[in-house]
Amino acid sequence: MTTNILDMETLALDEEERALVIIDQTKLPNRAEYLHLKTQGEIWMAIRELQVRGAPAIGDAAAIGIYLAALEIDTDDYAEFAHRFHTAADYLNSSRPTAVNLSWALNRMETVVKNAEGKSIPEIRALLRDEALRIKQEDIDICKKIGEHALTLVKPGMGLLTHCNAGQLATAKYGTATAVMYLGHQKGYNFKIYTDETRPLLQGARLTAYELSAAGMDVTLICDNMASTVMKNGWIDAVFVGCDRVAANGDVANKIGTSGVAILAKHYGIPFYVCAPTSTIDMNTPTGADIHIEQRPTAEVTDIWYKERMTADGVKVYNPAFDVTDHELITAIVTEEGVLTDFAHGLTHKQ
Amino acid sequence: MTTNILDMETLALDEEERALVIIDQTKLPNRAEYLHLKTQGEIWMAIRELQVRGAPAIGDAAAIGIYLAALEIDTDDYAEFAHRFHTAADYLNSSRPTAVNLSWALNRMETVVKNAEGKSIPEIRALLRDEALRIKQEDIDICKKIGEHALTLVKPGMGLLTHCNAGQLATAKYGTATAVMYLGHQKGYNFKIYTDETRPLLQGARLTAYELSAAGMDVTLICDNMASTVMKNGWIDAVFVGCDRVAANGDVANKIGTSGVAILAKHYGIPFYVCAPTSTIDMNTPTGADIHIEQRPTAEVTDIWYKERMTADGVKVYNPAFDVTDHELITAIVTEEGVLTDFAHGLTHKQ
Repeated sequence: MTTNILDMETLALDEEERALVIIDQTKLPNRAEYLHLKTQGEIWMAIRELQVRGAPAIGDAAAIGIYLAALEIDTDDYAEFAHRFHTAADYLNSSRPTAVNLSWALNRMETVVKNAEGKSIPEIRALLRDEALRIKQEDIDICKKIGEHALTLVKPGMGLLTHCNAGQLATAKYGTATAVMYLGHQKGYNFKIYTDETRPLLQGARLTAYELSAAGMDVTLICDNMASTVMKNGWIDAVFVGCDRVAANGDVANKIGTSGVAILAKHYGIPFYVCAPTSTIDMNTPTGADIHIEQRPTAEVTDIWYKERMTADGVKVYNPAFDVTDHELITAIVTEEGVLTDFAHGLTHKQ
Repeated sequence: MTTNILDMETLALDEEERALVIIDQTKLPNRAEYLHLKTQGEIWMAIRELQVRGAPAIGDAAAIGIYLAALEIDTDDYAEFAHRFHTAADYLNSSRPTAVNLSWALNRMETVVKNAEGKSIPEIRALLRDEALRIKQEDIDICKKIGEHALTLVKPGMGLLTHCNAGQLATAKYGTATAVMYLGHQKGYNFKIYTDETRPLLQGARLTAYELSAAGMDVTLICDNMASTVMKNGWIDAVFVGCDRVAANGDVANKIGTSGVAILAKHYGIPFYVCAPTSTIDMNTPTGADIHIEQRPTAEVTDIWYKERMTADGVKVYNPAFDVTDHELITAIVTEEGVLTDFAHGLTHKQ
């Protein structure tokens, strides 16, 4: 395995502009396979099956995906175009329920259509193409800004823990939680990075350890249940995680296990930072209790990856994909606009 | 897979009394294979490679194992016998460093030899056989008493969480942490049992879920990083874990991840109980910081069980087999003698 993740993009519109190209994240780190997805069904399934994953990357993929849908809507009538576009957006939006970026990106694309009444369908398609590529470019710019703000919270040589993959593979570039690591690495900060493997799908082991190691960082993989020990050892100076949705009160939905890491960090007195584009903040969701948590197939726990089934018949499995971290456990939320540290009155009062 | 673990013993001296018979725990739950171990090298390797595991079971296996060694010491001279017996005990004791039951059981066997000076070698062998079988029977009796004391801490219908396997497979019968579950189940308590899968070696998924489900209990498997969520959901009324060594101040070494579960339990206000035979209490170890923690091969995290390697080259791995739970996180230690709840002055002042 010699591919360096930094040399390739996580996702893109292909050169002929007829397909969404993604690196299949379910095959990493053993194989770097690119998929060319043309139909809405293919794109829906790729999001559902985590071939493309990570809240920002899902938004980027959906934006490019719905643009491709617009190319297939064979009509000159605006009303019919808008109706069929809306149906396609609803379909893509149903692929995963927890990440708000998915509906956020699709809403932006729908707004383009709504504001383009009177324009020709080819003109609308061109506007949709521009908006999709703008969403992706904004993702890159936002992640970089998140990294710059996060750099103000750390010092060279620090030990940093992350959970799951809020990395370059979860975005178009830099990642959210990892942006501070990439930018710090460029400055020679010599971080010691620890990554939870993140069961059941091992995004930390397969993706985060892979991309940070390929970038030349010092990365140590641990099982999720070892986070307490590395903190107790004094090896962790700060925790950085991404997130899928921030509620109005500052509660955060992120990969299952995040809330446990936050509780451990609080116990050991270690700052716990959530890195999130402002697009991830959902003011329509009052608290974490209002966030719909996706339940995923039990085979992810008992069968996937393994040579054989690792659990006896008759054993039930609970497999939530995300959990909610209470806002009082969060030291700060780092966005592209700055570092938010006071959630006492919710996120309506931004610094 | 139809074998019911309750129908068979975890370990035994075979009928011809020339081999230690164990169920190979590395093959469960897919295959129930029995191993007949005759040489000291075979027994050392079986403990080292976790084919027999769990602090009490390791003690039982070592006691039977050193008895088998005594059969092979071909001399009529007491001094030579005692010397060679001591060498064999040292060798077995080196197989795993953290569980105190291993050295405790071997010390009991050595004491038999020390007190038998003047007796014939055949007489000493007979005494050793009796002591080994007594250690195993005591294990069974002790686990049952631990379960009876633990039953005073729970009520029917409760949700109980356990970590790793401190079950029947880790002892001769009943288990330590699971004794309350077996005895409660006999009384129709209808517990809802949750078991952490316990990475990297999945003892919770492969062993605990297997044996409790086979006994007819309601068992739900979760990944280690889901413990916070099931606690937050209100599904857990108490946590029961086993342990490998209790220091004099009440700090406890147990399977990696135990300390994290204890911190979560404290955060959510859930009682956290450690089940331990008094033989597990090591008054020669002042605090948890003095307990030697075994580091195990990195391949356990990256390769074992998997169809292919799940981590990129160049990624480091930290793989401690145990962690230390501070005594202030422990609601009570349940022993065969009773429930210990006050560690303010260490365990020298037992209730």
